[in-house]
Amino acid sequence: MAEVIDLADPADPRLDDFRDLKDADRRPDLPGRKGLVIAEGTIVVRRMLGSRFAPSALLGVARRFEELAGDLAGVDVPCYRTSAEVMAEVVGFHLNRGVLAVARRPAVFTMAELLDGAHTVAVLEGVNDHENLGSIFRNAAGLGADAVLFGDRCADPLYRRSVRVSMGHALRVPFAPVPEWPHGLAELRRRGFLTIALTPDPAAANLATAMSGERVALLLGAEGPGLTPEALAACDVRARIPMSAGTDSLNVATAAAMAFYERVRTR
Amino acid sequence: MAEVIDLADPADPRLDDFRDLKDADRRPDLPGRKGLVIAEGTIVVRRMLGSRFAPSALLGVARRFEELAGDLAGVDVPCYRTSAEVMAEVVGFHLNRGVLAVARRPAVFTMAELLDGAHTVAVLEGVNDHENLGSIFRNAAGLGADAVLFGDRCADPLYRRSVRVSMGHALRVPFAPVPEWPHGLAELRRRGFLTIALTPDPAAANLATAMSGERVALLLGAEGPGLTPEALAACDVRARIPMSAGTDSLNVATAAAMAFYERVRTR
Repeated sequence: MAEVIDLADPADPRLDDFRDLKDADRRPDLPGRKGLVIAEGTIVVRRMLGSRFAPSALLGVARRFEELAGDLAGVDVPCYRTSAEVMAEVVGFHLNRGVLAVARRPAVFTMAELLDGAHTVAVLEGVNDHENLGSIFRNAAGLGADAVLFGDRCADPLYRRSVRVSMGHALRVPFAPVPEWPHGLAELRRRGFLTIALTPDPAAANLATAMSGERVALLLGAEGPGLTPEALAACDVRARIPMSAGTDSLNVATAAAMAFYERVRTR
Repeated sequence: MAEVIDLADPADPRLDDFRDLKDADRRPDLPGRKGLVIAEGTIVVRRMLGSRFAPSALLGVARRFEELAGDLAGVDVPCYRTSAEVMAEVVGFHLNRGVLAVARRPAVFTMAELLDGAHTVAVLEGVNDHENLGSIFRNAAGLGADAVLFGDRCADPLYRRSVRVSMGHALRVPFAPVPEWPHGLAELRRRGFLTIALTPDPAAANLATAMSGERVALLLGAEGPGLTPEALAACDVRARIPMSAGTDSLNVATAAAMAFYERVRTR
């Protein structure tokens, strides 16, 4: 049973994991940082509670703990209840979502662990925008993609903003690095995945035509540069979304959503 | 030929349309406001130059005017060239895109004007988030939707942030209000449009099945509340994107992209 503890002193050391968030969680994934994962707001905290990220504490205002009462019933975690003003002083800015949960990072999955039983995976290269990354996890969850794999130069999916934009799905949809990028993609092929590179190249096949088979890996690069030549060369097929002339490429999370949608459209 | 004029005084009255943007363009669409439309950055300014929004002036740093030289060659518009510091003082914040263009709003289209020759239109209700609105225009342009129609309670597509997020396509994809919402939808039906309401309702038809015919109008409501019962009742068909259980509805701009994609997927 979660224990609700009323606190009024912003300097209380039990709140240290929530302190000065803007600074504290800048690149929490780097060595030497605490590696904390922060969930903000009722929906995301709820998703964290149902994930492998077991929170070590919650901080929030009374109303939010009331909303979360059912979710917290069977959970052994301290819930620090205070005012919006004290919360703002602790975290360093006004937080209108009214509740936070903090968790340590669990062990990282390996790619091999995620591929058993998977039918659709996204593979990202150079997606270094936290919001785009969060949106990709949200879209993966909504449209039933099984996992997200990371090639080089991607942002941290557990950064606070990514987690928030993902609606907490960055804590649910499993992810892992691809070892030895892009050579590690060969493992996908060995396991029967068709590797499809998304590109605006007009010479590429139409996405609807290219998508086939039991197991599909969809490779997406950052908006603008797209996939590197090395990543493109390591794929089985190049596919494009049929776009209008004279427009930019679509946002990478939108392109991912369309590829996931193409995968499930007649489900 | 665009005339480049060097300015160093942030108080210069020729810069008044660019002044204190954060305040000046808050609800520029309301009566009594100037109704200015601001394009930010090379890409969006370029799109404005090729649109029906004829800019009355540009303000920028030297490097951006060099990038735009080709676009400005045949255009008769004053280009105020200054330093990044003076620009920041005029607009009221640091602007890292380095160039702005300002235009007056042209006459509003009527729905009837936009329907001739249109095959795919989006109809929005309650989409009051400027970024979502901007993304919808970007996706409409990228995937060949012909027009955006506005029901009740939508945000201003010409607000600076909408225009920026749209990559300037809010200035290109035409839009118009639906008169007498939602009764005005009858006009779409009279013109042979199949009106399809997007909803997460599991009882709705699959989007892939529902989409048919020469002319389609796709109705989208805000994330969360979705379309009102009145709007749903005014449509021919209800359709859903096949989503995973236990997830939220997709972002409205992402849902729009998938509906546009379903329309063009085998083009």
